[in-house]
Amino acid sequence: MLDANRYGKAGIRLFTITRDGEADEVSDLTVDIWLEGAFDAAYTRGDNHDVLPTDTLRGTVYALAAEQPPGEPEHFAQRLTARFLAASPAAHTAEVVIAADPWSRVTAAGAPHPHAFAASARRPRRTARVRAGRDGAERFGGITGLLLAKTRGSAFSGFLTDAYTTLAPAQDRVLATSLDAEWRYRGPDADVVTCAATVPDVVAEAFATHNASQSLQHTLQVMGEAALAACEDLADIRFWLPNRHHVLVDLAPYGLVNDGTVLVATDRPYGVIEGTVSRADP
Amino acid sequence: MLDANRYGKAGIRLFTITRDGEADEVSDLTVDIWLEGAFDAAYTRGDNHDVLPTDTLRGTVYALAAEQPPGEPEHFAQRLTARFLAASPAAHTAEVVIAADPWSRVTAAGAPHPHAFAASARRPRRTARVRAGRDGAERFGGITGLLLAKTRGSAFSGFLTDAYTTLAPAQDRVLATSLDAEWRYRGPDADVVTCAATVPDVVAEAFATHNASQSLQHTLQVMGEAALAACEDLADIRFWLPNRHHVLVDLAPYGLVNDGTVLVATDRPYGVIEGTVSRADP
Amino acid sequence: MLDANRYGKAGIRLFTITRDGEADEVSDLTVDIWLEGAFDAAYTRGDNHDVLPTDTLRGTVYALAAEQPPGEPEHFAQRLTARFLAASPAAHTAEVVIAADPWSRVTAAGAPHPHAFAASARRPRRTARVRAGRDGAERFGGITGLLLAKTRGSAFSGFLTDAYTTLAPAQDRVLATSLDAEWRYRGPDADVVTCAATVPDVVAEAFATHNASQSLQHTLQVMGEAALAACEDLADIRFWLPNRHHVLVDLAPYGLVNDGTVLVATDRPYGVIEGTVSRADP
Amino acid sequence: MLDANRYGKAGIRLFTITRDGEADEVSDLTVDIWLEGAFDAAYTRGDNHDVLPTDTLRGTVYALAAEQPPGEPEHFAQRLTARFLAASPAAHTAEVVIAADPWSRVTAAGAPHPHAFAASARRPRRTARVRAGRDGAERFGGITGLLLAKTRGSAFSGFLTDAYTTLAPAQDRVLATSLDAEWRYRGPDADVVTCAATVPDVVAEAFATHNASQSLQHTLQVMGEAALAACEDLADIRFWLPNRHHVLVDLAPYGLVNDGTVLVATDRPYGVIEGTVSRADP
Repeated sequence: MLDANRYGKAGIRLFTITRDGEADEVSDLTVDIWLEGAFDAAYTRGDNHDVLPTDTLRGTVYALAAEQPPGEPEHFAQRLTARFLAASPAAHTAEVVIAADPWSRVTAAGAPHPHAFAASARRPRRTARVRAGRDGAERFGGITGLLLAKTRGSAFSGFLTDAYTTLAPAQDRVLATSLDAEWRYRGPDADVVTCAATVPDVVAEAFATHNASQSLQHTLQVMGEAALAACEDLADIRFWLPNRHHVLVDLAPYGLVNDGTVLVATDRPYGVIEGTVSRADP
Repeated sequence: MLDANRYGKAGIRLFTITRDGEADEVSDLTVDIWLEGAFDAAYTRGDNHDVLPTDTLRGTVYALAAEQPPGEPEHFAQRLTARFLAASPAAHTAEVVIAADPWSRVTAAGAPHPHAFAASARRPRRTARVRAGRDGAERFGGITGLLLAKTRGSAFSGFLTDAYTTLAPAQDRVLATSLDAEWRYRGPDADVVTCAATVPDVVAEAFATHNASQSLQHTLQVMGEAALAACEDLADIRFWLPNRHHVLVDLAPYGLVNDGTVLVATDRPYGVIEGTVSRADP
Repeated sequence: MLDANRYGKAGIRLFTITRDGEADEVSDLTVDIWLEGAFDAAYTRGDNHDVLPTDTLRGTVYALAAEQPPGEPEHFAQRLTARFLAASPAAHTAEVVIAADPWSRVTAAGAPHPHAFAASARRPRRTARVRAGRDGAERFGGITGLLLAKTRGSAFSGFLTDAYTTLAPAQDRVLATSLDAEWRYRGPDADVVTCAATVPDVVAEAFATHNASQSLQHTLQVMGEAALAACEDLADIRFWLPNRHHVLVDLAPYGLVNDGTVLVATDRPYGVIEGTVSRADP
Repeated sequence: MLDANRYGKAGIRLFTITRDGEADEVSDLTVDIWLEGAFDAAYTRGDNHDVLPTDTLRGTVYALAAEQPPGEPEHFAQRLTARFLAASPAAHTAEVVIAADPWSRVTAAGAPHPHAFAASARRPRRTARVRAGRDGAERFGGITGLLLAKTRGSAFSGFLTDAYTTLAPAQDRVLATSLDAEWRYRGPDADVVTCAATVPDVVAEAFATHNASQSLQHTLQVMGEAALAACEDLADIRFWLPNRHHVLVDLAPYGLVNDGTVLVATDRPYGVIEGTVSRADP
């Protein structure tokens, strides 16, 4: 028999231009959509009567973007979930996940250019997610791929040891991560625009200034509390932090001493730290 | 305050050789490990007293593989979770995920070579997962990246339409997917070796012979039921099925008719169908 | 001033079905096209008069595939280069590179199924390349991503040492590579179909049976000579061989001895060996 | 017989910290090394006498970085090639390619932090290449992955048409690319530091302000001339420009008009434009 199921469309690319001001504005989104609900007949009997095709999900993204520019990704995700719940009576939940690739203006003749934009493959992406049911919605903001590193102020010692321990305690190591975070907004009036603009900087600053870091777990907690303190409208914030290990190169075979300056950044394996920091008063 | 959290090590590469027979045997695994439990002090106070370092998780994989060859991935995952629960008193759960890359023997002088191998062209990646607590464990097998396509016997029609519908109903279309599946075993005596060898072929055959397919959802159900029928020891099976759309090329501008033979395989966006098929009698 | 230049279209996906027999046949190609010639005016003056748009390159692939099934990739590449030289008077050279993803039939009821196909992400790709000028063409076949490993019969010793040497000589090591090769055909009558089917197996067998291997370079030479011996119609064969290092894990910290059975496959850095083996009598 | 051949090491990761100022500095490099020369005996006879192992190439990178911080990638590449020509008498050419990932300081308390860094959002990857023989060297600088887009000032019309043309002429289209460029320096005294800092901005500004663009080829020429004009020490500059097609969505099925504001950024296929712009007086 059929248990949990859902369907949707992933990787819808939407690039929009707002042309009505003195300077053009661009938005570069990648949209994923999920529907959950009473779709069992499609699986068990091959009856598609209740299935809104994924091609229609795609088309709806373009049509709604044409009717009104997408604006903030959280707002566009909300418009989309509302439309999908209306268009699909069988769905009890519609979830829309949007990743926004940032562009900034090219500088020309010393000033921002009105219609030329640049980006780099290394900048973090902003994400927005709305999970909407018939009775209300949860809204999330986030970032992915924020590369952070610090060359001081990070220790890892006092840990549990056993027969398979080879790691030496470190009082001063390099700490680096490719930070993914997602935060949940409180209530329908949350100021998503301000929070989405604020949290990445607050998190990076907390990472930088946490000089007593005893571990990536420890710094996760500090970053989470800083985000909650900076934005009243956040209910919680969840981190996924791969530990991009920077290992000191053994220079002894070359007759040299490594005074903490020559390191290799390893690919695999990597530690991963996950955790959610929430308010005591949700 | 700290909510849900876990930590672990991802991407541990383990290649082992069994050299004691007439022909060598190889095993090529990539191991991920997760620990969950009472690790809050590491986050909130920077106290690492209960933290088994991820470097030790890595070392344990190598040490246990040296003490006894890994064998079936499900069995190795079980040995690892048992070790981690013993080594980490703070953990209430240890989860180990193993991906096994298949190798087959090179043919030389018309026979299988005793110590040369080529990546198997015929088998997808096999996965095993064990999630073990203090009171018992759940075991899972799986496959990822099994590419399947059929050129007949697939329809999609009778679906819900609205103002944003552009898709035409199809009575005979190409259906293709890159199949990921994970199944859950019943009880500690399940015959994981036989099931892991059987399910991929059964699923592929069900995909092939489901000539009345009304949708990828419909075929998901048929594949799931076939897997459950073939292996008594399966409790359920979950599929993740991206719809690799093969779209007919419009040849009219070139004065040609497309009789269903010239198609473009698109990258993005793609539909995704997810669902779990379980036994009525778990 | 403008120097060397070329333009083209990359990543054209073409999936074709031959439906006229008892069983369907499929072909799954990805086509890249390059034109070289007198296109300077487009760069220097913005004059597109001689530019065949890359969109037309794409359309031509679909139209020619509709007029006649692509068949062997080398033959389809030839038809395409001929067409592009005819369609673009300014081009002195047209180059077409085709990668063919292999599919095989699903087994159903113990027999190959007539219209269902399976593949795996790990099988090698076959490539074909035709570089055609007004006076003739060069034709190439190839494979990419053939993973090979051997657990015996490979040494590396007697190498040059200096102050930065840390590698120990090895008399018996694991040798592994992800083999890319491209061979050049002699003359317009070369039997590309037989050669393309033969060379991958011949190369793999040479890798397997070269028990006196002193290095990956050494085995490259043996594989190249085997390919030239097996196919009279090959003029030369070029290899790109990353050395997928399999490093013995140091088990001493765990009180264990590694008898050559527990290894880690590293990602980066990796050695690379390149070389072309050609006939003495071209 | 053996024809052209070379060998080397790819993907050497080097992260260095300079700790002697008030603020730490970091450098994040990925190094590839190639040696060419009289290495035939390794291939043909399995004689490794002249082979400097790729493991030694790796070790040399770390040792030289420890002896003196790498500094500018072009300078470090020069030191490395000199060392490899000295260490490998059989080599006639040593080539070193370095990719530098840019980091910038985290802002904390309104000021740049002395030891915390975030991947730079504003800069693409910088590359340096030195190809050194016994009689001299060629030096190259470059960038990869600079994403550029403009929403006005780009046309494509007046092109060659044939039976397979479907593209409509465009007077005002979106133009976007992921720019890779490599420039060659004139002479051993070229100011590589200033040029490497200048060229990316100059190229981006030329892209932005070329309002009469008739094609990506046309803009390539303008960008190349701007780079040569800005840096006297450049001999030439080569571009690899994939055309990231932004296609207008057909909104007619939804009863909407697309006034040039709703587009889809396609993945494949994509046009590619390559060209080198050089000085009339090299």
